[in-house]
Amino acid sequence: MSVVPEVAEKFGQSGARVLLERGAGTRAQFPDSAYKNVVWADSPGAVLEQSDVVLTVQPLALEQIQRLRSGTVVIGFMQPHARQAEVKALQERGITSFAMELVPRISRAQSMDALSSQAAIAGYKAVLIAANHLQKFMPMLTTAAGTIRPSQVLIIGAGVAGLQAIATARRLGAVVEAYDVRGATKEQVKSLGAKFVDTGVSAEGAGGYARELTEEEKRKQQEVLDSRIAAADAVVTTASVPGRAAPKIILRAAVERMRPGSVVVDIAAEQGGNCELTRVGETVEHQGVKIIGPVNLPGELAYNASEMYARNLLNFLKPAIDKGELAIDWTDEVFAQSCLTHAGQIKHAPTRKALEG
Amino acid sequence: MSVVPEVAEKFGQSGARVLLERGAGTRAQFPDSAYKNVVWADSPGAVLEQSDVVLTVQPLALEQIQRLRSGTVVIGFMQPHARQAEVKALQERGITSFAMELVPRISRAQSMDALSSQAAIAGYKAVLIAANHLQKFMPMLTTAAGTIRPSQVLIIGAGVAGLQAIATARRLGAVVEAYDVRGATKEQVKSLGAKFVDTGVSAEGAGGYARELTEEEKRKQQEVLDSRIAAADAVVTTASVPGRAAPKIILRAAVERMRPGSVVVDIAAEQGGNCELTRVGETVEHQGVKIIGPVNLPGELAYNASEMYARNLLNFLKPAIDKGELAIDWTDEVFAQSCLTHAGQIKHAPTRKALEG
Repeated sequence: MSVVPEVAEKFGQSGARVLLERGAGTRAQFPDSAYKNVVWADSPGAVLEQSDVVLTVQPLALEQIQRLRSGTVVIGFMQPHARQAEVKALQERGITSFAMELVPRISRAQSMDALSSQAAIAGYKAVLIAANHLQKFMPMLTTAAGTIRPSQVLIIGAGVAGLQAIATARRLGAVVEAYDVRGATKEQVKSLGAKFVDTGVSAEGAGGYARELTEEEKRKQQEVLDSRIAAADAVVTTASVPGRAAPKIILRAAVERMRPGSVVVDIAAEQGGNCELTRVGETVEHQGVKIIGPVNLPGELAYNASEMYARNLLNFLKPAIDKGELAIDWTDEVFAQSCLTHAGQIKHAPTRKALEG
Repeated sequence: MSVVPEVAEKFGQSGARVLLERGAGTRAQFPDSAYKNVVWADSPGAVLEQSDVVLTVQPLALEQIQRLRSGTVVIGFMQPHARQAEVKALQERGITSFAMELVPRISRAQSMDALSSQAAIAGYKAVLIAANHLQKFMPMLTTAAGTIRPSQVLIIGAGVAGLQAIATARRLGAVVEAYDVRGATKEQVKSLGAKFVDTGVSAEGAGGYARELTEEEKRKQQEVLDSRIAAADAVVTTASVPGRAAPKIILRAAVERMRPGSVVVDIAAEQGGNCELTRVGETVEHQGVKIIGPVNLPGELAYNASEMYARNLLNFLKPAIDKGELAIDWTDEVFAQSCLTHAGQIKHAPTRKALEG
């Protein structure tokens, strides 16, 4: 949901008129009655034809793009790598489109960083899913019937999703380890109360540049990681690279070293998965180990996901609204770098290159 | 699972021989290979015919009771109220049976209190289920896209299950309120970081005795509670009375005051439910509110549930093992009060009364 009531009100204060489809917020628990001072569209899809700016969560479908007027501004996740036909259609119809994926990761734009806000949700939810599938407590308990040992949780990847997963597993009282190829994440991991998995191999070369690891070093790295996977009750993997297949970090052999009853939650399932056995949208059981490949984790926390995403959009668009009129400053790197199509051109160089050959 | 490897070993040290069915621990993640120095039964059911003491989780079925030798001791949950035909069979076959439900709640017997150990598991798991169904974060988050408010959780009933539910919801960062008709629980609730719902009505009468509430007072009590239910994102109810139907605390009208997207987890579902709309084993959706009626929550944490239950059984039985021989001290109130049938008699007075008319 791209406009929650709080954000609709703020758009209104900035002089913009907000046009909404009836029931648009229902699934995310924002009933129509929660919206004040918005204009309700007459018919489904009318927002596409009547708006100067269209805000969306998912990329518009081809038939939706056909209904836009030339010159309309569209802002949302665009999946430029996966949705080339749609990008082409946006270009051909003269739509100005901004992809939230392309917002530069500079500190001024953090409040617009929708990839991060949605990743935090995925990290939280993945740990809840793991906890719910485990046949063990996460926390240590001291009871009249003796002590219950805490679960061991391993988080692979210490980006936004990974850090939120660490924090959540710690909240639940698990003993948490985390791993990231980027050694610089070590301090963040430790500050959240988790142990950083040290493979004893550093890729830092002369002059601070990363160097290629030798085969022997790669084997050593994998062996250390595999032994931590084997020791874990739950593993949450979060390693993904936008527009590319997720790296395969947990191989079948590593799963087969895990104890029956253990759980892998693979946040990268939609990008092909970090585990060799992941199947997207399914829970696979292999030798007693469950491998869970969730789809659209932020959608499972639709209320907060919408709240955060809508604020990201507001923070992105607000500087371009001047007394209710749209005025995009193209010298602003945020707009310049996140622009996908404009005035019949594909502005994003990698997408242009991919589309034109 | 009534005997985990750690407990099997301790029984062995006390001189007892442990006879096990192959695969008995598999579902609870205790593979046969984890057991040392146990004797494996030749065939399924042979443990019933060959043992002096039979340990069980669920009450034995009639056909299982038929296979026991006269004089065998059976220890486990017996559900004396619900399983009258089985109690009769135990009596007729001259079985000595002890019901874990009947272990007196004295401090010396806390380590044998299986109702409490299993209730703690149910309380933990119920909150995880609630968290997993909510479309909101439980914790408060401060992000670059603004603050996410914490969820409001209400726990009804502050017994063992309720206290563990409070602790778990607090771990997850929710704002927690709890309610119990027993005002004496207030301090425990507060010590776990939750707010005690004060209905402003006290049942304390002259000389410290409880008095009957007036209709007006009952209405006031219900109104205060209903308003707290309406304010909650998640409600976990834990009020049950052994052998009786669970009290109906959340009426349909209260559910209809809750926000869409809210969740009720009714731990008392198997005893008829604390919520009027609960259906056992199902998730009902009523005006956007989910009412979840789980079955056998301890079974979902089979590993720890077995660990704790097996320790309860060990602590119960061990004083009766003398150099590997069974020697029950009938003057011990733990054995005397928990005995259900012995030497052709029903020892537990309420059960005897129920069975004999």
